[in-house]
Amino acid sequence: MQIILLSGGSGKRLWPLSNSTRSKQFLQLLQDPDGKKESMVQRVVRQIGESALGAEVIIATSAAQRDFIETQLGSKVEVVTEPERRETFPAIALSASYLAWEKGCSRDEVVVVMPCDTFTEARYFETIGTMASLVERRLADLVLMGVTATHASADFGYVMPGAPQADGAYSMVEHFVEKPTERRAHELIAQGAYWNGGVFAFRLGYMLDMTERYVQASSYGELRSRYDVLPKISFDYEVAEKAASMAVVPFCGKWKDLGDWNALVHELPAHAMGNVVLGGDVMGTTVINELSLPVVCDGVDNVVVAAGHDGILVCSRKSSEYIKQYVDPMHMRPMFEERRWGTYRVLDDARYADGSHSLTKSITLHPGKYISYQIHHHRTEVWTFVEGEGIFVLDGEPRRVKAGDTVIIPVEHYHSIKALTELTFIEVQMGNPLIEEDIERFDWDWENITLE
Amino acid sequence: MQIILLSGGSGKRLWPLSNSTRSKQFLQLLQDPDGKKESMVQRVVRQIGESALGAEVIIATSAAQRDFIETQLGSKVEVVTEPERRETFPAIALSASYLAWEKGCSRDEVVVVMPCDTFTEARYFETIGTMASLVERRLADLVLMGVTATHASADFGYVMPGAPQADGAYSMVEHFVEKPTERRAHELIAQGAYWNGGVFAFRLGYMLDMTERYVQASSYGELRSRYDVLPKISFDYEVAEKAASMAVVPFCGKWKDLGDWNALVHELPAHAMGNVVLGGDVMGTTVINELSLPVVCDGVDNVVVAAGHDGILVCSRKSSEYIKQYVDPMHMRPMFEERRWGTYRVLDDARYADGSHSLTKSITLHPGKYISYQIHHHRTEVWTFVEGEGIFVLDGEPRRVKAGDTVIIPVEHYHSIKALTELTFIEVQMGNPLIEEDIERFDWDWENITLE
Repeated sequence: MQIILLSGGSGKRLWPLSNSTRSKQFLQLLQDPDGKKESMVQRVVRQIGESALGAEVIIATSAAQRDFIETQLGSKVEVVTEPERRETFPAIALSASYLAWEKGCSRDEVVVVMPCDTFTEARYFETIGTMASLVERRLADLVLMGVTATHASADFGYVMPGAPQADGAYSMVEHFVEKPTERRAHELIAQGAYWNGGVFAFRLGYMLDMTERYVQASSYGELRSRYDVLPKISFDYEVAEKAASMAVVPFCGKWKDLGDWNALVHELPAHAMGNVVLGGDVMGTTVINELSLPVVCDGVDNVVVAAGHDGILVCSRKSSEYIKQYVDPMHMRPMFEERRWGTYRVLDDARYADGSHSLTKSITLHPGKYISYQIHHHRTEVWTFVEGEGIFVLDGEPRRVKAGDTVIIPVEHYHSIKALTELTFIEVQMGNPLIEEDIERFDWDWENITLE
Repeated sequence: MQIILLSGGSGKRLWPLSNSTRSKQFLQLLQDPDGKKESMVQRVVRQIGESALGAEVIIATSAAQRDFIETQLGSKVEVVTEPERRETFPAIALSASYLAWEKGCSRDEVVVVMPCDTFTEARYFETIGTMASLVERRLADLVLMGVTATHASADFGYVMPGAPQADGAYSMVEHFVEKPTERRAHELIAQGAYWNGGVFAFRLGYMLDMTERYVQASSYGELRSRYDVLPKISFDYEVAEKAASMAVVPFCGKWKDLGDWNALVHELPAHAMGNVVLGGDVMGTTVINELSLPVVCDGVDNVVVAAGHDGILVCSRKSSEYIKQYVDPMHMRPMFEERRWGTYRVLDDARYADGSHSLTKSITLHPGKYISYQIHHHRTEVWTFVEGEGIFVLDGEPRRVKAGDTVIIPVEHYHSIKALTELTFIEVQMGNPLIEEDIERFDWDWENITLE
């Protein structure tokens, strides 16, 4: 079995900890059974591994998230990145073509598509096992998960099942209702409708055929290069609502989208995370602090306080689902990023009266990692190494650097850095002003660099 | 008339905006009549200037506060700094000797001592005028202000007056009661007692005689050099409670100590100060943000949020008076300081696995200002200039520097910097580890430096 995890979203609803590159599924706020910090996507991949599914996992995502996924999941998953953001149908089509042409899966291989950030329990994966067996037995082209509705929500899609089959193990799908009014949702639930859980199972060949209607490609690379031809439409609309035969398998258990602070804090292992002093007079309040400076909190009940490199949120749990409106108009650069090679934090972003502009970062590379060989057309950089050792290249000349050294990189000079040990430097960028995307990358063969 | 303003305190109760160098009286959160930001001490000095007192002001304080006072008040005041922190009696004795020997005031000059951070109104200064006239007419050795008590507080000292004189303009003092129980305070108020407002008027000679009982000095410098001989005792105990004849002048009007957040927010000009987004569902909540990153706040009532370089506070207004207990155990370096030459911010204070330690600061010098000529025994520094122009000296060699330049200062090398224009640089300190007070200062004659 192949599982395609869909990883998208820009995650403003968990601001300030989530941002345009760090979506909510990468926040390491949960706890694994060993007490270690775990993100939503790490939790789902761990649960798949612990289940009896014996599935391999690929993650369909954007290029911006690749570094997070590699950092958090390493070799546990393969990653398929979209050339551009389109929608779930093209993303799943691309992943299916990867399975067929890159992994060599047969047309009869069972594929399961699911969100990467559902907060759920072991039985959910047992349900997926049931879905897969229906596909194997060719009882339907498409099998989806129907989540037992616990309240009349206007935020979900609903699936109306037909008569129960095989002692209630599944039903054929009668029809879908997309985001009804609450009143209509009440009626639907009374009639036995489920929430559409966004989990689909099918044979690989079924999806390849769907894709062929738009692009006749004979390799993964060819499909990827013609990705813009695939229609910008969701899998639900393009496939599920048009399928000839479709079954739904019910799931009744813990199933949550930890999509806003109110939902998330219910599942957190502690009320205070990070450098936090909680006073004696707080109830139902959670404080999460990713900054080094301390947060002191007292005398407030049912409040969420979240402090991160992008900002500080103080809000009641009930109003936390509405913060998007305040955060959306903000256009800030991400102040913290995790990359494949390490992490960086923006320490200072300052504009001066004379029009000049400086950006100061703390940058850490992990041992053996390096950044691309690059030049900047509009900025000079000064790097002061404060931890570890590495090899620095300026205009083709490699040399060893260590804590205490400073290097100056003028405009238009080629440079790169590779860490020998954990390596940290303070980078001061200067420009007049700095240009956001002022970088050009070149090839550099780090493997063949030797220094005596 | 000479007014001695007492400026002390380390101000943890307005954490995180106040710290060991920036006491509460220097926080520029109030608003002057022109709508400009104003600190408590700026407000008092402005009110003295606007009154009919015609008084000159000196501020008795510690060396650590001198830079703040000069930045905020410039030439409006003179500053007397204690060689060490002792108590109000020695501080006032030192200021009195400054008035006598440095300013040449006569023994008959009326001196008024008062706190620098009382939040009050114009009539307060009229009352001080009345107090001064009683001293001039020699109706008492010491005249103090009696504030009409509005509630039975156990936090204040009380003054019991005798029979009203001159149509109620003043009374002689019967006795003092220091911080009674609330029950006793009720009785005292019923009997006509006032709060002791900490404002005293006397002739300069009176204080000089008090001082002579401990130190026979014939100059300000001599007294200052023997400051440790003066007893560590408050003016109230040493002078007020022992005075032979003492009068009290009543004041009934606005008189507040804006000593905690709950008291302060009542008097602030706005509910949101700095980079703040207040949602629609807040009442009685105040957010003050001195950081560059945004604060979003919604759904919380009667809360104080204060974000500064030393930390973040979120607390109910009623619990704000108890935050000291949480803040006192914190031993943090100040993350922001105002100095005579400019300001600095700590951007990053990082310790690494290999034992090394780096501190990154953004430092701004105002035009014409300079820092002392200094060496460090345990740290190297790298300065990258990002704004303006200046003259940098390394081991006696001055040279011009400007935005874009980088200088490296190894351990034990003499250096200084003077700003020609507004000058900002990013400083990276490195040590193993850094030593807090690793600085030795030397003479350098900046006045005679010329560069072609």
